[in-house]
Amino acid sequence: MRFFFPLLLLLLGQIATTSATQWRTLDPNNTLLMTLPHGKVVIELAPQFAPKHVAQFKALTQQGLFDHNKFYRVIDGFVAQAGPEARRDRAPNLTMEGEWQPSKTWAFTLVQKEDLFAPQTGFVDGFAVGYDEKDNHAWLTHCPGILAMARGNSPDSASSHFYFTIGQAPRYLDRIMTIFGRVVYGMNHIQAIQRTAVIAGDKTIAPSQYTKIIKMQLMSEVPKEQQIIIEVERTDSNDFKEKLKKRLARKSAFFYKKPPQVLDVCQVPILSRRLK
Amino acid sequence: MRFFFPLLLLLLGQIATTSATQWRTLDPNNTLLMTLPHGKVVIELAPQFAPKHVAQFKALTQQGLFDHNKFYRVIDGFVAQAGPEARRDRAPNLTMEGEWQPSKTWAFTLVQKEDLFAPQTGFVDGFAVGYDEKDNHAWLTHCPGILAMARGNSPDSASSHFYFTIGQAPRYLDRIMTIFGRVVYGMNHIQAIQRTAVIAGDKTIAPSQYTKIIKMQLMSEVPKEQQIIIEVERTDSNDFKEKLKKRLARKSAFFYKKPPQVLDVCQVPILSRRLK
Repeated sequence: MRFFFPLLLLLLGQIATTSATQWRTLDPNNTLLMTLPHGKVVIELAPQFAPKHVAQFKALTQQGLFDHNKFYRVIDGFVAQAGPEARRDRAPNLTMEGEWQPSKTWAFTLVQKEDLFAPQTGFVDGFAVGYDEKDNHAWLTHCPGILAMARGNSPDSASSHFYFTIGQAPRYLDRIMTIFGRVVYGMNHIQAIQRTAVIAGDKTIAPSQYTKIIKMQLMSEVPKEQQIIIEVERTDSNDFKEKLKKRLARKSAFFYKKPPQVLDVCQVPILSRRLK
Repeated sequence: MRFFFPLLLLLLGQIATTSATQWRTLDPNNTLLMTLPHGKVVIELAPQFAPKHVAQFKALTQQGLFDHNKFYRVIDGFVAQAGPEARRDRAPNLTMEGEWQPSKTWAFTLVQKEDLFAPQTGFVDGFAVGYDEKDNHAWLTHCPGILAMARGNSPDSASSHFYFTIGQAPRYLDRIMTIFGRVVYGMNHIQAIQRTAVIAGDKTIAPSQYTKIIKMQLMSEVPKEQQIIIEVERTDSNDFKEKLKKRLARKSAFFYKKPPQVLDVCQVPILSRRLK
């Protein structure tokens, strides 16, 4: 058991710092329940950052367009992608919503300056954000578990295909893809989606083996008794800011030699808890 | 289908640049076959970087110590950890092998200077490496899919428990843990290991549901007809260096706006191919 405790304490350390003010409830009108054959996934949408993408995705969800759709492009360590063929009038092309100009009063919690890919990184509403103060531009970053729209070569060609990131953050896609949600529950089930890409020389995967979405629903439209109610850690709380400081300092005896005093915004867990 | 092609081309681009000199075979004496209930995983060991850890892990493998062992600590986005109770005389405590002083002639392929966690990052023998030129120290970094020894608070307390990284690289563990291998085949099966940690309010996972290792074997001791023969991309080849340059430049029309000219060493795929 001796190997179990030190790292478990790190985890408990995160949980122990939580308090009532540290949590926020999700808006069931901007929360998705995606039912896979092997489990349920809850996704928080981000209408504050990508309103048109969220509106279209919600409309397609309500039309049942994603039900029975297959993850047809799943590359381990990269993305799990799905998306139905949709009628043009139902799923018109969307204009990129990859970045925005924040107001002076935005609730940005700084994580790191001079990150490899951004002048600043931090969190807004639980979403990992890149920020360039010089031209006052912010964008959602491709941390594991984000939901983004796929597109063709043209920037404004996203419409109904989408992907989840399932490996080391492909930050080179920041600002040129529209991220519009993130997984807040059931990321393990996203990780268990059948890969469709195999290495050279390996047995190919037949489309009949691809993972199917059983149902995609707005949480507000799920019958009450089947709803999954998730609360998410507030990233603008003092508790969270304290947690970042502790994570940076690594004071536990386990760190017999201190790591560099830097944080990768994609490696900071944002806690969820389940109420129902 | 229109969403399928651009990113597929990126992948094919990687495959298309390969040539005969770009591949190396694995030493079956330093390769593990780990059989899980849901698939087979191949691991390349790194005796050149962590000789004592590799020697002990191989000995314990040959004694069958890992067979039927369960992954008892699996945290989504972080690690999958297993390890049996071992007799002290069979699994004595190991001295840390977290970093080393490279010779002037080492085959280091530079990826990035001034990475967030290291003055330099790059590859040696397919392993992602951090490097500090000032004091001539190098270390294996915690990219997804590495195999490392767990330990207690004391640096020199690793013996038989181990973990695979399954999420965004926990680079803060670099230099203070001993990495001694990496997954070269079947990372999807590592990702599908049953999580043992759940969020607050969620149903706990009974130990009977934990994923069991059916068998851990040295590839050289696997009957010929059951062997999986993997070749791995050479990270010291000119082909690979060209690939890095292309990855940095992102010349495809898909990148209508160029990302920062930086590379995250943990986000560069090292290709494997299967011969048998």
